[in-house]
Amino acid sequence: MPRTACVLIDWVTLDRGSIEPLHRQIYRALRDGVLSGRLVTGQRLPATRRLAHDLEVSRITVLAAYDLLTADGFIASRSGSGAFVATSPPQASPMPHSAMQSAPSKSVAKRLSARGRMIVSAAYEPERLEPKLYTVGVPALDLFPREEWTRLVGRAWRRGGQPLLALVEAKGLLRLRQAIAAHLGALRGLSVDPARIFVLNSTRQAIDLCARVLADPGDRVWIEDPGFVGARAPLLAAGLELIPVDVDEDGFNVAAAQAAAPEARLVYVTPAHQYPMGATLSLARRLQLIDWARRTDAWLLEDDYDGEFRHEGAPVLPMQALDPDGQVLYVASFAKSLFPSLRLAFLVVPSSLVQAFVSARVVLDGHPPAAIQAALSEFLESGRYAAHLRRMRAAYAERRSSLALALKTHLAEAVAAAGSLAGMHFTVGLTPGIDDRALVARLVPLGLSPSALSESRIRPGPPGLILGFGAWTPEALAHGVEALALEIARMGQPN
Amino acid sequence: MPRTACVLIDWVTLDRGSIEPLHRQIYRALRDGVLSGRLVTGQRLPATRRLAHDLEVSRITVLAAYDLLTADGFIASRSGSGAFVATSPPQASPMPHSAMQSAPSKSVAKRLSARGRMIVSAAYEPERLEPKLYTVGVPALDLFPREEWTRLVGRAWRRGGQPLLALVEAKGLLRLRQAIAAHLGALRGLSVDPARIFVLNSTRQAIDLCARVLADPGDRVWIEDPGFVGARAPLLAAGLELIPVDVDEDGFNVAAAQAAAPEARLVYVTPAHQYPMGATLSLARRLQLIDWARRTDAWLLEDDYDGEFRHEGAPVLPMQALDPDGQVLYVASFAKSLFPSLRLAFLVVPSSLVQAFVSARVVLDGHPPAAIQAALSEFLESGRYAAHLRRMRAAYAERRSSLALALKTHLAEAVAAAGSLAGMHFTVGLTPGIDDRALVARLVPLGLSPSALSESRIRPGPPGLILGFGAWTPEALAHGVEALALEIARMGQPN
Repeated sequence: MPRTACVLIDWVTLDRGSIEPLHRQIYRALRDGVLSGRLVTGQRLPATRRLAHDLEVSRITVLAAYDLLTADGFIASRSGSGAFVATSPPQASPMPHSAMQSAPSKSVAKRLSARGRMIVSAAYEPERLEPKLYTVGVPALDLFPREEWTRLVGRAWRRGGQPLLALVEAKGLLRLRQAIAAHLGALRGLSVDPARIFVLNSTRQAIDLCARVLADPGDRVWIEDPGFVGARAPLLAAGLELIPVDVDEDGFNVAAAQAAAPEARLVYVTPAHQYPMGATLSLARRLQLIDWARRTDAWLLEDDYDGEFRHEGAPVLPMQALDPDGQVLYVASFAKSLFPSLRLAFLVVPSSLVQAFVSARVVLDGHPPAAIQAALSEFLESGRYAAHLRRMRAAYAERRSSLALALKTHLAEAVAAAGSLAGMHFTVGLTPGIDDRALVARLVPLGLSPSALSESRIRPGPPGLILGFGAWTPEALAHGVEALALEIARMGQPN
Repeated sequence: MPRTACVLIDWVTLDRGSIEPLHRQIYRALRDGVLSGRLVTGQRLPATRRLAHDLEVSRITVLAAYDLLTADGFIASRSGSGAFVATSPPQASPMPHSAMQSAPSKSVAKRLSARGRMIVSAAYEPERLEPKLYTVGVPALDLFPREEWTRLVGRAWRRGGQPLLALVEAKGLLRLRQAIAAHLGALRGLSVDPARIFVLNSTRQAIDLCARVLADPGDRVWIEDPGFVGARAPLLAAGLELIPVDVDEDGFNVAAAQAAAPEARLVYVTPAHQYPMGATLSLARRLQLIDWARRTDAWLLEDDYDGEFRHEGAPVLPMQALDPDGQVLYVASFAKSLFPSLRLAFLVVPSSLVQAFVSARVVLDGHPPAAIQAALSEFLESGRYAAHLRRMRAAYAERRSSLALALKTHLAEAVAAAGSLAGMHFTVGLTPGIDDRALVARLVPLGLSPSALSESRIRPGPPGLILGFGAWTPEALAHGVEALALEIARMGQPN
């Protein structure tokens, strides 16, 4: 075979100060040469000795680069003829090699699916990573027994041994499901078979799962308005049509919902402590809701998001207890009762749905990390969880009182009565006309970050602020109200 | 107000040996009386003294029960007239109170959504919880450094302090994404910006996410046939139409795929080590695939499921490196390189998709537990992960040799040449006519649990077995082949 002339390689620049070895630099340069169309199939590469000379490197270095190129299929050697380019991209399409070149003119939205665009448009707010004063939903991280938890995690690993490395049931660790069942019995008055409990990452994941398994795109879902944006988002993402339902002092207005959309397939409701307005769903309405769901074969998703922190009155029995194995699915999370980055929640489903949810979990994801489930089992079984809840209830009561007093002192005239029987937030009404979103935007630079009530609304309504009080000391909570009062005063004159 | 006659309560039976306090038993009995329609709104309850006498309990006990019933809204007291039933279910619909009574005649399938039924029907096999000999996909749990890992988790907690309790970015812990980027650079030859990495629970979750964000129901997806059932399932569950594509010694047959469905939207492919047949996707086909995807604006999902365990030849450069910020999404998991119950995987997306995937993660779930991410960061940064991979590569090479030798010795005539350049499984062909599913069913009672190749197929094809060799000692792997050979001989005569 006659020796064809070899291609001129004069564009390789080596960086001798780089931590990337020289042979990798040569490999990359030649690879990119092929991918960009500069080198094409059949072209002969310089002999290693020659290229080594040109690049002022050792021959070993070039040999190493050629080996890598051969392994990846870019070049091949013919005996006695040296190395040739073996494969190059289809002629029309040399590869772009930087993000800058990559299809810059295509709009991102065009490249998503229709449901992808729906999911993206359901995103309710930019991520808020650093909680500021009054951020909603953050528990008392300062009071969490981190050392105790660390010891427990270590113990779970030591006791779990090799079996803790393997997968467990898709439902979650049996031991944890049993501990959750015991906890539900003792603290929430529920009698639940552990076989009906699913350990999940988050309430969002539970809602996404329920929306997909129980409802089709276009199906209607009743949802509290104002309500929890974090619940609204996965329902929207699943393509459901949200039917906003008024809430009043008895909670979710079932009759209004029935009038608006009698054929709804799913209901999302926070019976113990309506988020964010704070009402408890009355027994009459609970029974009305269950009656409707039984007649229409609809599903009720009960989110008991802060059922463990009731400050006034007796604990409220979850709706699930009224229809223990019928139409109610019950979800709760450990994000607030323990800590958010734990990422553990659970869902109780009726017996008739267990098999379907097992399949869905196997197909779509699987269970949360086993070691964390084992550690939480210990925490629950040992009584440490109950003790932690008692300490937290006392702490939240104190924080709540401090905030309530400060609101009364500094803001009594500008805000409507703020009621919070439970949980770790207050919702306060503002004088009509105040733009709560604009107010929040002005508060953020001051280090205050409550949520605008309008964010929780689907339909327009009176303005307000939702103030989280879980994560800050009584002093900090009270202190912030002065700045809050000042900004509110600036934005509008109270009547 | 005249005193109405009080209702007769003669059906309450107390269990004095129960751990449930007597007042809770009375509460439950009366509550169930209301819910079942035995007691209706307006009926007067016996005076506490009277009921205490009838039930032979103290009056305090009855008072406590009435208090609970009042708190839950079942009864109310009128001054001077005692307690009345305050709320009862709508007349037509007393509540059922056991799973037995609960809508027993409804078929479960009817109560799921259409997509719920689709998700359920995508479930590929019953959960296999206890790995038996040859179960595919289980790494060497016996060799995992559990003590080292436990210490590391403890250190992550101590170093992380209070911030480790709070949520991190939806993408995952920045520190872990940086460590993954460094790892990808060092071990897989990829140069990836950590901003494009998403930490997820599992490969399944990644596929589900990609299917939803990038494709709509009815869209076509190219998928290797035979291929990975765990990937097929979430694609089916997302409503996509699977286009089975032949694989040969060069991997995925791109030309055949283009002929079958040129308008596909998504491709799922295992380029480094086709699952389960073991081929490496040739450079020419990689370039062909990328070229097609660029021209049609389709997405390529590259699953590098065992790229870290190459036994022969040089490591194969991931396809992502050929189109680093274009059409390729790259997914890999720590389930096999560390341990399955860790539940951590990651997805690299092109820059153009980062924002959409952030939104999707925020809306649909959020990040995996932060502490586990911190521990894995340490494991990666400290070089322990690289050392672990080296140890595992040596162990798998040994296990693989042992199995290969035993197969050659006992089964050379019955099975086709078994090639596995990488990973922790062999796929062996069986004499045509042997029913591989039936064979597996006969092996399970013997303690052997390989997968039937037919389970990996969409269209019918020659039978085979997939034998996992990761989790067992060389001796156990060799020993099992005798039983395997015996059963294969029983099922069909080799030619």
